[in-house]
Amino acid sequence: MQNHQQLEKIFAQLSHLEHLSAMAHWDEAVMMPEGGGEARAAALATLHRLSHEKLTDKKIGELLKKAHEERLSSLWQSANLKWMQRFYDHARCLPADLVEALTNQRAICEQVWRQARAKNDWSSFLPHLEKVVELTRQSAQMRSQFFGVAPYDLLIDEFSPGLNSQIIDPIFTRLKSILPGLIEKIIAKQKSIKIIEPQGPFAISQQKELGLALMRAIGFDFNHGRLDVSHHPFCGGVPQDVRITTRYNEQEFVSSAMGTCHETGHARYEQNLPREWISQPVGRIHSMAMHESQSLLIEMQACRSAEFMQFLAPLTKNYFGEQVALSSDNLHHLYTRVQKGLIRVDADEVTYPLHVILRYEIEKELITGAIECRDLPDLWNEKMAQYFNLNTQGDFKNGVMQDVHWPSGAFGYFPAYTLGSLIAAQLFAAAKKANPAVLSELSSGNFVPLYNWLIPNFQSHASSLDFTALMQSATGEALNADYFLKHVEQRYL
Amino acid sequence: MQNHQQLEKIFAQLSHLEHLSAMAHWDEAVMMPEGGGEARAAALATLHRLSHEKLTDKKIGELLKKAHEERLSSLWQSANLKWMQRFYDHARCLPADLVEALTNQRAICEQVWRQARAKNDWSSFLPHLEKVVELTRQSAQMRSQFFGVAPYDLLIDEFSPGLNSQIIDPIFTRLKSILPGLIEKIIAKQKSIKIIEPQGPFAISQQKELGLALMRAIGFDFNHGRLDVSHHPFCGGVPQDVRITTRYNEQEFVSSAMGTCHETGHARYEQNLPREWISQPVGRIHSMAMHESQSLLIEMQACRSAEFMQFLAPLTKNYFGEQVALSSDNLHHLYTRVQKGLIRVDADEVTYPLHVILRYEIEKELITGAIECRDLPDLWNEKMAQYFNLNTQGDFKNGVMQDVHWPSGAFGYFPAYTLGSLIAAQLFAAAKKANPAVLSELSSGNFVPLYNWLIPNFQSHASSLDFTALMQSATGEALNADYFLKHVEQRYL
Repeated sequence: MQNHQQLEKIFAQLSHLEHLSAMAHWDEAVMMPEGGGEARAAALATLHRLSHEKLTDKKIGELLKKAHEERLSSLWQSANLKWMQRFYDHARCLPADLVEALTNQRAICEQVWRQARAKNDWSSFLPHLEKVVELTRQSAQMRSQFFGVAPYDLLIDEFSPGLNSQIIDPIFTRLKSILPGLIEKIIAKQKSIKIIEPQGPFAISQQKELGLALMRAIGFDFNHGRLDVSHHPFCGGVPQDVRITTRYNEQEFVSSAMGTCHETGHARYEQNLPREWISQPVGRIHSMAMHESQSLLIEMQACRSAEFMQFLAPLTKNYFGEQVALSSDNLHHLYTRVQKGLIRVDADEVTYPLHVILRYEIEKELITGAIECRDLPDLWNEKMAQYFNLNTQGDFKNGVMQDVHWPSGAFGYFPAYTLGSLIAAQLFAAAKKANPAVLSELSSGNFVPLYNWLIPNFQSHASSLDFTALMQSATGEALNADYFLKHVEQRYL
Repeated sequence: MQNHQQLEKIFAQLSHLEHLSAMAHWDEAVMMPEGGGEARAAALATLHRLSHEKLTDKKIGELLKKAHEERLSSLWQSANLKWMQRFYDHARCLPADLVEALTNQRAICEQVWRQARAKNDWSSFLPHLEKVVELTRQSAQMRSQFFGVAPYDLLIDEFSPGLNSQIIDPIFTRLKSILPGLIEKIIAKQKSIKIIEPQGPFAISQQKELGLALMRAIGFDFNHGRLDVSHHPFCGGVPQDVRITTRYNEQEFVSSAMGTCHETGHARYEQNLPREWISQPVGRIHSMAMHESQSLLIEMQACRSAEFMQFLAPLTKNYFGEQVALSSDNLHHLYTRVQKGLIRVDADEVTYPLHVILRYEIEKELITGAIECRDLPDLWNEKMAQYFNLNTQGDFKNGVMQDVHWPSGAFGYFPAYTLGSLIAAQLFAAAKKANPAVLSELSSGNFVPLYNWLIPNFQSHASSLDFTALMQSATGEALNADYFLKHVEQRYL
C-alpha cells in the first residue's frame, strides 16, 4: 500500500497543476485581454513542462513497479494503478524535443489557421498543417511501437481509451449504409411541416436568464460552477468548479439555449464524479467518448424530446413574451429539423455522424501515410458529394478548413462525437426501461429520475471500469448502433 | 555571464508560476463559486510548494555563488542578482511543509473570514486566525534568525524591502503627535461647509461606464488588463494583464469612482514597468510601499485635487444627469471630507494614517507574542477609543474583522499604506516642481504631463535601485513626512 499511497500523492499534485492549467485556459477564452496572450502562453508552457518532468520522474517508474506487487484494497485502487501506469508510459515514450516541437507547431498552425480560414486561404495553411501531421505521425509511431497498437488506434485510444478502429469500423460502416437513405426520407417527410421562425430581438440578459433556468432544471450545481460567454462554447474548469460557456446572438435564442443544455450535460458528469477519488486518474471522466455521451444524452435525448418542449415552451414565453413560434410543437419542429449542410457544428443529430465518418476516414489514411495533406481538399469534396450531394470545390473555409481539430493536432478525437451519440441513445434507452418517468417527467423539467438512474449506473463509476465493462454494467450490452438508429426512426419517421 | 543567464531562465520560469498563482487568486476573488474554494486552496498550495522547491534547489545556490564572481554588464544585472539572492535566502530558510501549511491556512482562513465577517462572527473566525498567526510567527522567526533582524521587521521588509521599524517608528510617532490635533481643526473648519449628497440611485451600468472613462483618462491600457467587481477591491494579475476590481453600490457612486482611480494608479505602475526585464525580480514593482505610493499619488494627490474636479464634474453629469450635487465645488467637498470613522478603506487621507498606526502597533505585538489573537478585539476597541474616540465594542465586522490582511496572513503590510501616502506626496511635489502642468492639466483630465515625469523618474526604474536610492533619485531627498503634512495643511486648512 505504501507505494500506491506515494503515487496517489504525486498524482494528486499533478491534478492540482491541471486545475491551474484548466482555469488559465478558461480565463484565456472568457476573460483575458488580447495583450495578455504572450505572457499566458509562456506561463502555460512552463506549467506543462513542469508537469511533464514530474510525471516522467524515474521515481514514478520505481513506485509503479513496486505498487504492482502490493496488495491493493479495492477495485478502484487497482484501476487507479492502471491509469497511472498508462499516463506514465504515454509520457515517457516521447522524447522531450518531440513533445516541445509538436506543442509549438500545433500552436503556430492553429494561429495560422484562424487567419487563413477567414481568407479561405488553403495554400498558406497547407505547409503548417503538413508539419503538424508529420510530427503527429512520429509521435503516434513511437508510442504505437511501445503499446503494440496501430498508430491511428493509438490516437483514438488517447482520447477515448478502450476504443479502436476494430470496434469503430463496423459501426461506422453500418451507419454509412443506413443514414443516407434515412436522411432522404426524413427530409421528404419534414417538407410538409410548416416551421415558424421566432421573431427577435431576444435580449441577451433574458437569454442568459433562460439559460440559467435550464441549468437549474437539469441540476447544475452553482456552488461548484458558473456560466459565462466565449467565442466557442465549451465546458472547462475542474469537477469542483465547472466552467461552462455559451454565446448569444440577439436575433435568435434557439442555439444558445440548446448549447447551454449541452454544456450542462458535460458539467453534471464532472460534478457527479465521486469526490473521494477526485484527485486521482481513476476519479476522472472516463474518456472523451463518454464525456460527449453525457452532453448528447442531455441535449439530444432529453432536451430535444417532445416531452421537454412542454417545459421549454412556457419558459421561453416567460422570458421573451408570447409569440406563436414559441408553442411546444413549433419548438419541437425547430429542434428536430434535419438538413444537409456543410458545417459539422451546425449539423442535426441525424446528419452529424456522416460529418464525423467523413473526417474519420480521411484522418485514418492521413496518419497511416496513405494520403498526404495536399490530397485533403479533393478527398473532402469527393466525400461531401458522396454523403451529402454537396459541392465544396474551392470552399476551403466551409470545407476542409472548418474545424480546429486538425490544425491543433487533435487527430483521433472526431470518432468520440458519434460514439458519444450512440452511447447516449443506449444509456437513455436503459434509463427509460428502468423507469419510464425518466422521459415523462421531462415535460415538467424534472431531471431527477434521469440522474437517479444515471449517477449510480454510469457517472459514479468514473474511470474505475474499462470501456466494455462500463457499457455492460450500465446498459447490459456492448456498444452498438441499434438504440441510436431506433431513436432516429422513432423521433423523425 | 553564463551563470547569470541560467539564473535568469530559472527566475523567468518562477515568474510564469507566479502568473498562474496571480490569475488563480484573481479568479478566486472575482469569479470562483464558493464551493470551488477547497480545490483552489489545494491547487495553489501545490503550486507554491513547487515554486518553493524550484527556488530552493541547491543548483540555484551554486549558480548564485558563481554569478557573484562574474562580470555583469549592467547595473540592472547586478541589482537582479541581489534580488535573486534575497528570494533564494528568504525561501531556503523555510521548510517546504511550513510554506505549504501557511499557504493552505491563509486560503482557508480568508474563506472563513468572508462568511464570518458578514455574520459579525468573531468566535468561529478566531481559531482559523490563530493558526495563521502561529504559522506566520514560525516563518518570521526562522527567517529573522538567518537575516539577523527582528521577526516583525522581517515581515515589513518582505513587503517593503529597505523599510523597518527603525525607519517607521519616528515617522509614525510624529504623525501620531500631529494628526489628532490637525483632524480636530479640519473637522471644525469643515463644519461650516454645506455638502450636498448626490441623490441616487446611480445605475451600476452607468457607474461602470464612468469608471472606465476615468481609467481611460488616467491611461489604463485595456489591451493589457481589465476591470471587474470583487468584495474587496484590489489590483492583481501580472504586468502584461493587470486585473483591477471595484465594487458598486446603487445608492452612491463617489466611493467606487475614486476606488477605480486608486486601483488604476496601481495598474499603471505595473503596466509601465520596463518590458525587457518583466520576467526578472529586478523588473518588478519595487515594493508594496512604492506600489501604494503610485495608487495614492493618483487617488489622493491627483484625483482628489480641486483641479481634477473640473474634469470629473461634467463627466459625472454625463453619466448620471444634471444635479446640484455634481458641481465641481461640491464634489471637491465630498472628496475631501474629513471624518473619524470605523472603516480604514472608507477613511480620508488625513485620518487614514491613524488607522494604519493602530494596526501597526497591534500586529507588531502580535508577531512578537506579547499579545494573542484572543486579545485583539479589546485592544482594537481601546485604540479606536484613543485615536478616534469611537466605540467598537462587539462590532467585530466594522472593527477587528474589517480587513482581509490578517486572515490572509499579510502581517507587515499595513505600514506600506501610510509610507505610500508620504512617498506619494513627496513624488507629487517633485513632479509639480519639475512641471507645473502636472497639476493644472488635471483640470482637463490630462495625466500625460504627470506620467511624462513619473515614468522616467520613478516607474521605469522598477527594482533596479534600493529604497533610499530610488527616493533620492526621484525626489532629491530621503523619505520624510514633510510633504504629506504640508499637503494636508494646504488642502484642508
